[in-house]
Order: sequence, then structure tokens, then C-alpha cells
Amino acid sequence: MSDQLTQPARGTRDFLPNDLRVRRHAFQTIQKQFELHGFVQMDTPALERIEVLTGKYGEEGDMLMYKIMKRGEGEQSGEADLALRYDLTVPLARFVAEHRNDLSFPFRRFQIAPVWRAERPGKGRLREFYQCDIDIVGGAFPMADAEVITTLAETLRKLGLPSFTVKLNSRKVLLGMVEVYGIPEEKARDFFIGLDKLDKIGVAGVVVDLKGRGISAESTDKLAKDLDAPLEELRNRLAESAAGREGLEEVDTLLSLLSPSLGTELAFAPFLARGLDYYTGPIFEVVHPDLGSSLAGGGRYDQLVGMFSKQDVPTVGGSLGIERILLILKDSHAATATSPVLVTVWDESSRKNSLAIATLLRVEGIETEIYSGSGNLGKQLKYASDRYMQHVIIQGPDEASRDEVSVKDLATGGQETIAAGLLAATLKERLG
Amino acid sequence: MSDQLTQPARGTRDFLPNDLRVRRHAFQTIQKQFELHGFVQMDTPALERIEVLTGKYGEEGDMLMYKIMKRGEGEQSGEADLALRYDLTVPLARFVAEHRNDLSFPFRRFQIAPVWRAERPGKGRLREFYQCDIDIVGGAFPMADAEVITTLAETLRKLGLPSFTVKLNSRKVLLGMVEVYGIPEEKARDFFIGLDKLDKIGVAGVVVDLKGRGISAESTDKLAKDLDAPLEELRNRLAESAAGREGLEEVDTLLSLLSPSLGTELAFAPFLARGLDYYTGPIFEVVHPDLGSSLAGGGRYDQLVGMFSKQDVPTVGGSLGIERILLILKDSHAATATSPVLVTVWDESSRKNSLAIATLLRVEGIETEIYSGSGNLGKQLKYASDRYMQHVIIQGPDEASRDEVSVKDLATGGQETIAAGLLAATLKERLG
Repeated sequence: MSDQLTQPARGTRDFLPNDLRVRRHAFQTIQKQFELHGFVQMDTPALERIEVLTGKYGEEGDMLMYKIMKRGEGEQSGEADLALRYDLTVPLARFVAEHRNDLSFPFRRFQIAPVWRAERPGKGRLREFYQCDIDIVGGAFPMADAEVITTLAETLRKLGLPSFTVKLNSRKVLLGMVEVYGIPEEKARDFFIGLDKLDKIGVAGVVVDLKGRGISAESTDKLAKDLDAPLEELRNRLAESAAGREGLEEVDTLLSLLSPSLGTELAFAPFLARGLDYYTGPIFEVVHPDLGSSLAGGGRYDQLVGMFSKQDVPTVGGSLGIERILLILKDSHAATATSPVLVTVWDESSRKNSLAIATLLRVEGIETEIYSGSGNLGKQLKYASDRYMQHVIIQGPDEASRDEVSVKDLATGGQETIAAGLLAATLKERLG
Repeated sequence: MSDQLTQPARGTRDFLPNDLRVRRHAFQTIQKQFELHGFVQMDTPALERIEVLTGKYGEEGDMLMYKIMKRGEGEQSGEADLALRYDLTVPLARFVAEHRNDLSFPFRRFQIAPVWRAERPGKGRLREFYQCDIDIVGGAFPMADAEVITTLAETLRKLGLPSFTVKLNSRKVLLGMVEVYGIPEEKARDFFIGLDKLDKIGVAGVVVDLKGRGISAESTDKLAKDLDAPLEELRNRLAESAAGREGLEEVDTLLSLLSPSLGTELAFAPFLARGLDYYTGPIFEVVHPDLGSSLAGGGRYDQLVGMFSKQDVPTVGGSLGIERILLILKDSHAATATSPVLVTVWDESSRKNSLAIATLLRVEGIETEIYSGSGNLGKQLKYASDRYMQHVIIQGPDEASRDEVSVKDLATGGQETIAAGLLAATLKERLG
């Protein structure tokens, strides 16, 4: 029963109580794991001054940003002075510059918050969606990198996701490839984008893709040969470049450091590029064979966080693909009841008693609601059963005169009458 | 160390970890109480199509709304197609109309979420702030009204707020006054606004205020006489009007229903008006003598929720003044440590051991971080002490060779060396 007028705006969602319960449960698990690993939560406003965000995400980002019109007299100008945050990383950079005297470094932060992008809406592509980031600002290689990867892997495990693989690379490995395959510097980005598709389109596909991006046959031939050979060949090739050697050393350090304790598969993935330009060192992605896109990813970016304070601030961060993860989790959670107990209202004269009974149960920590619509007992029972509630409490004049209550079990249909004073204990036992 | 560039936008805030901890703790308490009282959480997007919001908050609301520019080619038009939500009530009305077939009524919902208003920023006046609402959509008088008041009062108590008073009135009492004091209908709103100031400016002040608003001396004389007399006089006067009689009956029903179980002071406050126009029945406010503004408030509004489905949907709701409450709570919370335990990194060769120790502790549920900056042990100890951490774990080559660890207690300065296998149990005992 949905019409244009009452639908949420395109690419945004309403959350019904059961949807939100699954989300909240996941957020709580995540938060608990992040804290267990020594990260602390911070937050920034949804709104930022437009000059804080503009130019930080490339031309596409500027296009997809939600810009807010000036108010009052300024509204006539048709200009914007604010924008909704586009990610949680540029605001982090502003936050760190603003509060650097109140923070101690390394600053291990996490943030779980919505961001907004005016993407063309589509399957799984939203305009208002949550990001879930951890970062160690001022974190040194390799312990900070290892901590971020460990934390995300353990969190995914605690969320109950199926076994996954952590793919590891370094931006320096990619820069080494640019060198050893003779890719012109201005084509480096195209080269990374093409390479990143290897898992999906295979060696031949990548070669075609790269040629289409104007990369020479000489380069792609050399590359294709290495791609078809055992990984060792590529390692030897990379060793020809200083950047390549550095990248390999970063990757090997992390592989050796993490393998004993990570508790999940960990692999060098030399073609992993990750989209964002700002990475400067190790990068990683958490993938599952049955899923098209990654569950988490991140890496080291030593320049971005310092952009507002005009200095390098070594930082490593990672992000859970939380909306994707929630889609997977949602399928595995059945709808659950709201409160388990409904206190009915027999008639006008019994309202006070109903309120007293509910108060008694709530004091004992039992989630309880009083029927607060209008309608007879039959309607009240239907309300409870429609909502999968477990127990209905009834106190008619007979029961009230003897200070008793009847408890109806909606699963069995059985009903028993007990002393009102025993109600809380009885329900506690039944609800486990 | 703040400059224009890195400050959050005017009227918005960054939340440092300690700030956020206090907020989160309060939100959790609130959520738990709301659920204990049988309310379920839902949410709506921050963005709404502009036509959903426009015209619902009066001229001032339209002025203060954050409007979002069209994107792509539309950006040139200088027009807005979306706006940030201005409260949680109009979006609720849209939500109920959109999802009415998926909800069962009475629908007891709560929502804790940010809203945006371009107010002139000032002390305690923000542009991005949280609202915290409960509503029973389809809730009948008087049980639904009683449930909302009970839930808010109990939540305030659980938040640890000092004793407070619930002031109760009905919009119908106010309409009765309009009748019996002969206030012209078009002056009714001015009359309510003036009356509402009684606590602050006294009878003489109210009379001056009302006269300034163009209300006749005849009306104000009659009113002043009743205001100076015992409440019984006003009750008799109200009984002259049908609306007044209805209002008194609503108030008396709720007073009698709530008094036995509410556990806090409850008083008829015939001059309580509340700002919003949409109330149709009982209204209430929770106040504390030492605080200028109320801790919570709400009432019955039977027409608003149905505005998108063009039918009356009886609803009663209330809202905690959460930002104000947080200001009070903040003062009573000291800054606390982040994680209690830091695992240091002796040197490059001990990184793996540090990671293994941390993993061991985390598995046991002990919040632990590994030092992930660069620096010697002295710097690592300073980091821990700057952050009020309690225990620092050290494993140098000697300890490692004997499979031992040293535990330094930062409060006492004492240090003891124990078998690594006993570490988790030892820390658990020390941390309580």
C-alpha cells in the first residue's frame, strides 16, 4: 500500500522494528569487538562546511555529494554552504586536526555512522548508508596494520560470517609493477583498475581491458607472462624495482606476523588494487568465494589524515562492508517477538490494577506492555497473538477480588490462575 | 588549536570518545527502559522528499529547514528536492501511512535519532541534535496516555536524574479557558503562549503579556482573579464550558490512574500549554525546580499521524529532552580509561609474541590494545599512563625465554613477573 507520497526518498530506507533489531544486534557485536581490541568510538556531525569536503573525492565525488542550500536571504542565491558527509575519513582528518591537543597518539578510533552519496540507486546501492571504520592515527608499521586486520577478522568471525580469506598487498608492489612493466605514470591508475579485475575476468580479460585503456602490447605481454607463471616469477620481477622490493618486504612482514594468530586464511594478492588513490602502503581486502564483493578492506594512508594540518600523519584504517554484511545476516535472523508479555485491561475499573501489574513485572526486568488500544479481551488476545507475544495476563473482577491473575500461554493455549504475588517469579521461570 | 577550517560547522559538534561514552550509556539506558515498557525501535532516513516536510511546521519551520540542492543538471536550477528531517513526528506519519499493512496497532514505537534545524546557534541551541521519542499510534485514552507518561518517568529515574514533577493538562482545558474568558478564536494561540509563562513571570506579568498581545482587559481581569484564587475556582469556572468539562475529566482520569504507581509528584497544571499546535487532548511536561526548561514532554495528537492517509489516527507521544538531559548527566561522569590493558612491543622480534598475548586476553573478554605507535618502552609506558590505562604487559627476551610476562600496575607502580599462562586469570582478578 505504497504511493509516491509516503515512500522514503529514492535510495533511502525506512527500518521496521524487526529490521532494526538485526542491525542493532550487529552494531553491538561490532562495537564490542572494536572495544575489546582497544578502539574507542568518536563521531562527527552529518553536516560539514562544503569547503571541508569539496575536492577531496575527485570530480565524481563532488558530483555525488548532497549539498545544502544557504538559508534565509542566502537561499535566493541558489548556493550551497554545507554538505552531507560523503565518507568517514575526510571528517576524521578534520577531527584530528581540530582536536589534536585533546587526543593521545596513536589514536585508535572507530565510528559507525551514516554517509550520503547521490549514486544511481540499484540493487544494494544506496544513497544513505552506514560505514563502519576503524583507524589507528599515528600508527606505525607493522603493528598498527596487524591490529587493524586482526580486529576486522575477529569481528567478522563474531558476526557469524562464513570462513573468509584476507588478501594482502602493498601499494608499493603496484608501483613496482608500473616500473617493471614500463607503464607510463599517467596510466598507472588505469593499470590498477584493470589489474583489480583479474579474479573476475582472468588473464586474457585483463590484457584486453588494459589494451583498451591504452596500455602498450609490450607491457601487457610481459605482464601476461608473469600472470600465467607461478607467483615466484612475479616476486623475482618485482625485485628489479626499489618500490617493488619495499612492497614485498611489507607484505612478507605482515604475512609472517599475522599467520600464527589470525586464525583465517591469509594470502599475498599482488593484483589487489582497491579503488582509492590515497593508500600509501599495505592494503587488504577480506573476501568470501560465494560473495561478489568484499566483506571488509583497508590499508595504510600516511598523507590523508594530515591534509588539514599540512603534515604527514601515518595512519592505517579499515572498514567493514556493513550494509553488505547486514544483507547476509538478515537472511539468517527470523522475525522475533516484541515484548513477551501483554497485560490486558478487563474494563475501565481495572485500568489501575493493570498498570500496577505491569509496573511489578517491569521492576523485575520483564519486558511488558499494557494493551493500550481500545477493544474487548478477544481483540486484545488477537493483538498479542499477531505479535507473537508469549504470555497474556488477565485479571477480571473474580481474579481481582481474590488478588489473583490468570496467565495465558499463547503457544499452548493453556491458562492458569495464580496468586498475583507469584506472577513475576512464574513468568521469569517460563521465559527462562 | 582550532581554526575556522577544522571546526565543525556552526551549531554542530564533534564527539570525543569520552563525550560519546556518556551519550551512549544514556542511550542504552533509555533504549532498555523503552523496551522494558513494550516499545520497539524503528527508524526513518535523515533525508525526506521536500514535499513530505514543507508546510508541516509553519512558516518558521520552512525557514529553518535544511534543504538539499538537486544534483547533476538540476543543480543549476538552484532548487531543492530533499530536506533533512526537522523532527521525528512528521516522518512517523509518513512511515505509518507507508507501512500500515506491516504494522499491528496500537503500534508502540520509539526512535532516537538526529534532526536538523537552522536555528541561530546559542547556549544549548544546536543545529544538529538528537530527539528521543516514544509514541503509541492507535492508542486509546487513557491507558496509552498513562503508558507514555509512566515510561518516560521511569526512564528519567533510571537515568539517575533528580526528583521531578509531572505536570498534567489537557488541550481541552485550554480551549475551555478561551471560551470562559471570552478570548477571540484568532487570539487563542497568543493566549496559550502568554499563559505558559505563568511560572516565570507571575500573574501580573501574564496580564501585561496578554494585554500586549491584544487580549482585552475584561478577559485578563477575569483570568487574573481566578489565577489568584485557589485552583477550585478555576475548576468551577471551567465547568461552565463543555470543552472545559471534558478537559477536566481527562485530567482527573489520568491523575487518579497514575497517582498510585507513578512514584513521582504529579500535578494538574492548567496553564501548561506546550508550544505545538497539533495536540488534541491531554498534554504533560516533566519539570525540575532547578532547571529552566523541561526534561520531557508530550501529549495526545489524534490528527497528525493520519495526515498522509487522510484519516484520524489517535496517537499519544512523548519526547525526552535528551540533549538537555545529557548536559546534566555529563557533569556527573568523570572521564574514564579506554582499554584497561596495554601490551607493549619490546622490539621487532617480539611483535609476534605481543600479538599472541593480546589475542589470548581478548579471547577472555579483556579489553586490550597493543601499542601500535613507534617508540621505546618508556614512550609506551607514558602512552598508557596518559590514557589512564591500568595494566601494562611487558615481555622482554628474558621473560620470553622463560615463557613469562611482567605485569606493571600503573596505579601503584608495582611490577610482578608471572607465567604467561596465568596472565588472563591474573588480569581478570585484578580488573574485577
